[in-house]
Amino acid sequence: MPTSRQVRLKSRPVGVPQKEHFEIVEAEVPEPRPGEFVVRNRFLSVDPAMRGWVNSAPSYVRPVEIGEVMRAYTVGEVVASRHPRYKEGDKVMGQLGWQDHAVSDGRQIWRKVTETDLPLSLALGVLGLNGVTAYFGLLDVGQPRAGDTVVVSTAAGAVGSAVGQIAKIAGCRTVGITGGAEKVRLCREVFGYDEAIDYKGTKDLSAAVGAACPKGLNVYFDNTSGPITDAVLPHMAIGARVAVCGTASIANWDPIPMGPIMERWFLIRRARMQGLLASDFAHRYDEAFARLAQWVREGSLRYREDILEGIESAPDAIAGLYRGENLGKRLIRLS
Amino acid sequence: MPTSRQVRLKSRPVGVPQKEHFEIVEAEVPEPRPGEFVVRNRFLSVDPAMRGWVNSAPSYVRPVEIGEVMRAYTVGEVVASRHPRYKEGDKVMGQLGWQDHAVSDGRQIWRKVTETDLPLSLALGVLGLNGVTAYFGLLDVGQPRAGDTVVVSTAAGAVGSAVGQIAKIAGCRTVGITGGAEKVRLCREVFGYDEAIDYKGTKDLSAAVGAACPKGLNVYFDNTSGPITDAVLPHMAIGARVAVCGTASIANWDPIPMGPIMERWFLIRRARMQGLLASDFAHRYDEAFARLAQWVREGSLRYREDILEGIESAPDAIAGLYRGENLGKRLIRLS
Repeated sequence: MPTSRQVRLKSRPVGVPQKEHFEIVEAEVPEPRPGEFVVRNRFLSVDPAMRGWVNSAPSYVRPVEIGEVMRAYTVGEVVASRHPRYKEGDKVMGQLGWQDHAVSDGRQIWRKVTETDLPLSLALGVLGLNGVTAYFGLLDVGQPRAGDTVVVSTAAGAVGSAVGQIAKIAGCRTVGITGGAEKVRLCREVFGYDEAIDYKGTKDLSAAVGAACPKGLNVYFDNTSGPITDAVLPHMAIGARVAVCGTASIANWDPIPMGPIMERWFLIRRARMQGLLASDFAHRYDEAFARLAQWVREGSLRYREDILEGIESAPDAIAGLYRGENLGKRLIRLS
Repeated sequence: MPTSRQVRLKSRPVGVPQKEHFEIVEAEVPEPRPGEFVVRNRFLSVDPAMRGWVNSAPSYVRPVEIGEVMRAYTVGEVVASRHPRYKEGDKVMGQLGWQDHAVSDGRQIWRKVTETDLPLSLALGVLGLNGVTAYFGLLDVGQPRAGDTVVVSTAAGAVGSAVGQIAKIAGCRTVGITGGAEKVRLCREVFGYDEAIDYKGTKDLSAAVGAACPKGLNVYFDNTSGPITDAVLPHMAIGARVAVCGTASIANWDPIPMGPIMERWFLIRRARMQGLLASDFAHRYDEAFARLAQWVREGSLRYREDILEGIESAPDAIAGLYRGENLGKRLIRLS
């Protein structure tokens, strides 16, 4: 077996992990033992949620330990196997970490990738966690009805761009909130939003949301929390649904930051807010992937990728996400 | 017709209305015209929501105007009628205002009181808006399951005390949060809470809630918002439901006060928060009153009333609620 480069957590960040919190180390790839197999990673995922995985604040998963390979979803192919259910050449997506090669006993695998007519990288995007998060978050938690106005924050992002397009497929009017003129263009021209608001270039964001939602909004898919959400909630229509999917605008949860108290909006608009984690819907992934893949093939679900080259780009990649420098789903391609 | 004393709004308060924001005026009671009837009020209601009715911040109803009789629910009897559906002697509950006599065309009437075996004042409490708010807020929004832990703020109040008891009827474990030793005693001895926490006498409220909910809470019925809610939310179990019924701890919504950002709790616990207004369930009031009255008759739904005597006590009565001086549903009895 060749050696494998691994990106390990070097020190515990407070808030967004920066380049200096990681180190790249060479390691031997062990031979697979019975019941194990080796995956050669082709793409590494870079996701906003990875911030939470390295912080020590309470979360839904245990924090990555110092010295541990950075937890990450990857997609790759099986190059050696002593496992009955995985054979050489199988394409797999799983939590195999920021490294060239990974040894797995199968528990780290999220799914085998079966849409071989579509690019492999999609298994980390619209045909991966981002896709099912958008699918269940919008359709099950947001419960959009045809004619509804759906507002999406981080509208050009990996999850947000899928949410906006699925909302269009569901017959909704879509309003995207994103940062910068280039992302506004993407929202309008590629992802088909009816309106796109540049929160960075808008003086009064709340007024802009109000103007874009003259009858109020029925669904808010919230990827940011913070000032964007504060500007959106006053425009909820009676009975609105808020899907809380991420909190990208909050740099640090320890201590918990302050913001305007929001209960009054939920009370007077009889609105609902609900947090979601895609894995709660794991029993329905097959349904989601079948529909998502079909929408991709038909061209009604488009995507953008932001591909960094080489594992050397990993340590700064999460910080870059929070700097808003990517246009589309951020991936790292391994040669 | 005799003259009627009326409590009118004299000036617009910011936050909780005080005694000086009202004045008591004598007025002629007009003869009922065709399609009208006159109600002699027996009890006037005093509710936390009345604060919102006199403030100018956006709400679900238009603000009471300066010089207008204070909007309030009352219960009384028809003493003269030229209306086909209301006859002398009928007991009615409605939004007839803080006054001795009211002329109505029927639109202000919420319902005829038919449980003549039970005290008339209950039509403003467990058999009134408080009762249906508790009923639908807990059962429909909170969706308790047998064995759940249900936390209630303002646990000894008119709504909260009913919520706690309905939760017990539903097979739940109940934890009440209330202010002061006397209300803690009421919660334990009269309303049957399994645990009662005195937020005024507790140094670390969050730790006290955590100790009372070792497996986390499944339902939080929130009547307060603010610091009590901030202490409760971290103890939500996965999939918890928060019913937002009132915001009694927020003295003033203009400007909107700040508090810890809460989305993270909803995200990591995949919890749901939903505001409610009892009137959204108006089509199911008959169901609720039938069950509530039966529970009262059986003794499984107990209540406490805090009865002030005479219309002169009205101007200071809302401020007194927010000072926390009442034990039970606050009413004003007219002689």
